[in-house]
Amino acid sequence: MRKQISRYIFERLEACGVDCTFGIPGDYILPFYAAQQSYGLKTVVMTHEPSLGFAADAYARIRGLGVALVTYGAGGLNMINPTACAYAEESPLLIISGAPETTYRSQPARLHHCVKTFSTQKNVYAEVTAASAIVNNTEQAQQTIDNVINTIISTSKPGYLELPRDMMGAEFPISQQSKSHEYIHTDQTENQIALERITQSLSKAKQAVILAGFQLSRFQLLKPVIKIAEALNIPVVTSILGKSSFPESHLNFIGNYFGQFGNPAVREFVESSDCILGLGVVLTEMETAGYSAQLPNENLILINNEEISICGRDFPRLNFKTFLNDLGHSIANGAKELQKFHVPQIVPELIDNSSEDLSVSHIIDAINRAMQDNICIVTDVGDCLYAGLSIKTDNFIAPGYYSTMGFGVPASIGVQLADKAKRPIVLVGDGGFQMTGMEIATAVKEGLSPIVIVFNNASYGMLKFIDKDRPYYGLPTWDYASIGKALGATSYRAQSNLEFDSALRNALKSRAAVLIDAILAPEDLSPALKRLTDHFGKKMRAVGVS
Amino acid sequence: MRKQISRYIFERLEACGVDCTFGIPGDYILPFYAAQQSYGLKTVVMTHEPSLGFAADAYARIRGLGVALVTYGAGGLNMINPTACAYAEESPLLIISGAPETTYRSQPARLHHCVKTFSTQKNVYAEVTAASAIVNNTEQAQQTIDNVINTIISTSKPGYLELPRDMMGAEFPISQQSKSHEYIHTDQTENQIALERITQSLSKAKQAVILAGFQLSRFQLLKPVIKIAEALNIPVVTSILGKSSFPESHLNFIGNYFGQFGNPAVREFVESSDCILGLGVVLTEMETAGYSAQLPNENLILINNEEISICGRDFPRLNFKTFLNDLGHSIANGAKELQKFHVPQIVPELIDNSSEDLSVSHIIDAINRAMQDNICIVTDVGDCLYAGLSIKTDNFIAPGYYSTMGFGVPASIGVQLADKAKRPIVLVGDGGFQMTGMEIATAVKEGLSPIVIVFNNASYGMLKFIDKDRPYYGLPTWDYASIGKALGATSYRAQSNLEFDSALRNALKSRAAVLIDAILAPEDLSPALKRLTDHFGKKMRAVGVS
Repeated sequence: MRKQISRYIFERLEACGVDCTFGIPGDYILPFYAAQQSYGLKTVVMTHEPSLGFAADAYARIRGLGVALVTYGAGGLNMINPTACAYAEESPLLIISGAPETTYRSQPARLHHCVKTFSTQKNVYAEVTAASAIVNNTEQAQQTIDNVINTIISTSKPGYLELPRDMMGAEFPISQQSKSHEYIHTDQTENQIALERITQSLSKAKQAVILAGFQLSRFQLLKPVIKIAEALNIPVVTSILGKSSFPESHLNFIGNYFGQFGNPAVREFVESSDCILGLGVVLTEMETAGYSAQLPNENLILINNEEISICGRDFPRLNFKTFLNDLGHSIANGAKELQKFHVPQIVPELIDNSSEDLSVSHIIDAINRAMQDNICIVTDVGDCLYAGLSIKTDNFIAPGYYSTMGFGVPASIGVQLADKAKRPIVLVGDGGFQMTGMEIATAVKEGLSPIVIVFNNASYGMLKFIDKDRPYYGLPTWDYASIGKALGATSYRAQSNLEFDSALRNALKSRAAVLIDAILAPEDLSPALKRLTDHFGKKMRAVGVS
Repeated sequence: MRKQISRYIFERLEACGVDCTFGIPGDYILPFYAAQQSYGLKTVVMTHEPSLGFAADAYARIRGLGVALVTYGAGGLNMINPTACAYAEESPLLIISGAPETTYRSQPARLHHCVKTFSTQKNVYAEVTAASAIVNNTEQAQQTIDNVINTIISTSKPGYLELPRDMMGAEFPISQQSKSHEYIHTDQTENQIALERITQSLSKAKQAVILAGFQLSRFQLLKPVIKIAEALNIPVVTSILGKSSFPESHLNFIGNYFGQFGNPAVREFVESSDCILGLGVVLTEMETAGYSAQLPNENLILINNEEISICGRDFPRLNFKTFLNDLGHSIANGAKELQKFHVPQIVPELIDNSSEDLSVSHIIDAINRAMQDNICIVTDVGDCLYAGLSIKTDNFIAPGYYSTMGFGVPASIGVQLADKAKRPIVLVGDGGFQMTGMEIATAVKEGLSPIVIVFNNASYGMLKFIDKDRPYYGLPTWDYASIGKALGATSYRAQSNLEFDSALRNALKSRAAVLIDAILAPEDLSPALKRLTDHFGKKMRAVGVS
């Protein structure tokens, strides 16, 4: 029995929960688009490849797989940054690129959209994906496709498939479908030792805390963590990239941990704990607030997809998912013999909000007051992210580690297409909006309803605070409200608290895509950003150039 | 004697004719920006990295070097496509990226903006540049910097320099400055044989023609070609990527050669010639109109930076620049003994322009009528490029081979900053404008005056003609004139020939940045695009998916 390569790919995508792809058509990928249309899947066409990479990434974070369909060269090479972001933040993103026919590949690569050789684009993607391959013969097509898709699913990292145009309609002999199986590598003896060590630590501890990270949502591991938290009444904080990986509406949730940059009361509690369960968290620069986090090894139990380490001892032969599930079971079953902890009341950090002029603090307060279950907060990078950490929500998506600007508006499109019940509120600086904000037009075209709030301080504000005021940190002033209107969105301009509240109220009442140009004082910044820019400013000044 | 690395770089850039750089600031590059400000050079800050890559590329095509200053990861990895374009089209573009300090590099790459390892970004750039290096120690700093800059200049291809933040202020022991020397590799005997062969071909030929390519402008080789053309009165055509590499106002110029896609009269003349001098042209898919060009080896003399081949015999031991200069000399000196050729009158192709509704043909005619010496035509990809070939001009810049959308508007900024006497007229489709057109705001900020004409047919028109009408070829309608206004540009909306003429007249009178929303009939297309889409459509349909 034989099957067309394109059809096989669509069947696999659908089985992974994909109900639309993101793309921009171009001649090398057109037959694949045509095959997709016949199959009955839809591509959401966006305006620029960097944007569609972010949209597919956000969709992937919710659905477990997101797909970008691009043409060769001008398309594929224009989404390296979003793919790198997906790699750094472990998002299961699949890039499918069309390419010149295999029959041309014995000649020099002098076709349009070519760079050096026919391997160039694949080599580039190998640097920013967990698996990358060119489907260049029919006999191995199934294995090649399965290997890339299975790796994406099992690692929660991006992958790349290149389809030469003559492969799209080609048929291959179908073998038994390789399952999207995971290699469950776990050592039973070690497993037992590790479980006992953790139980011991918990029974000796005076103050325990769970530091929940992004991998809990990437690997669907919230359930065992809730079991652990509830069985022993352990307070839970989330890391920056992990915000909302554990529901903030849960009674055990006490705040976001951002070390020296975050709420001092949360920091104090976490760093004075003698048993810190870091679950699904990877200790990057951002998660440790510039490596300032005081999480001593002897108190730290770290369980993530890269390492399992308990109070200084490594357990290299355990599987992350298996072990965390086992731990949940084991603690829930043995809970009677274990002590219960106490969940402290931690008051969210007070941010100054006394001025009548519109401030970031006021925006955050207003959103907190208006919060509803169906709202998903999507942020870009800058104060919109760091101040945005003060929003209490169960749904939060941001490039909190890789820190790429331009993520917010396109990501909101991926969010709402992945879960139509969600209403995205996008927090984006003017710098980030100038990069990819035009995608609000795509939201309008698709009938989506993001509420895009532009934090307009007419500058790359964060850089100004890291360094000092310099001419190249100023941004040209755009009339964002007029632009929103020209793109089909309902648009408001807000310069005072009252104007902002009214705009937000109207936005939440309507079902349209909305843009709010929130005009801020140039010197307005949140306490988190103030602490963060002090730290990064020191690093910059250490270089000795001024 | 010791010198600061940053200062050394600025001195070298200035010596290469660079009077401004293009960039977006970000924390890993900030000390370099600060050093640049002290030095007295300026960065033109744009809104998005893909755009600034195109601007720096266009600047490079005019000045001989263009420079982009970006931050690590989110910056550097967001301009792979424009760098790939510069590689394919041989533009001397230098990317300087900031990076984490060398002191961190023994640890895992878990800093913000990092992907896999500290080599990831450099490895990616190695795939799309002629030279790439990390300046990671002071002792070899000068050699590393010189090697990248010298390679860019001698190959006219892009290069990449990565500056860890602690290297920016570091000093190195300066040695005698390595000259930007070129390796003049040429074999005197072969040189003589090759010159004689060409003279022989020319004396036997009944009909000779020069096919001038883009390398004439990249390597400043117009002079010898003018010598050759004038000494023997040889008619000259230019290739697509080479358009305006030979001045179209010159009496010997007879048209653009685009094989089966271009003016049939030009094709007939070139392909019936028995001595075709391909000078500075590389026979890519686009330059040969989809490899349909009839340029038989026995009639072809091909002289470019990759190969020198005379009527089927290769001369691998000759240097391109040296040889073409020698050939100019030799023919000019020996012209008395050589025959003169005849320059035919070739009428530009008639394009239908009878409708009152605005058409692409009318736009082209109107620009031809309004042409002035200081105008530089900058095009994006699509009918704006293929119809734009019918504009008679000495200044034309387009991504005619690599064919990346989004090039036009940003490139016009590079053009006018490279040569302030130039006034760019940008031809861009609505699809290309939606990608990078917002950079018109950067033009406004910098006091530049491009005239941006948006070919608005509410679709990826070219793809529709290659394939057939499908829902995913439609573009959301933007109110381009309102957007232009919101970005500070003088803006017009033109739906009839009269409205367009009036808008263009006003634009040319003003010194402002101007946007003209040129609303076209959906089925409007130029004869060149018609022939081109027929050809590419056949290739697509050959795949057997529909």
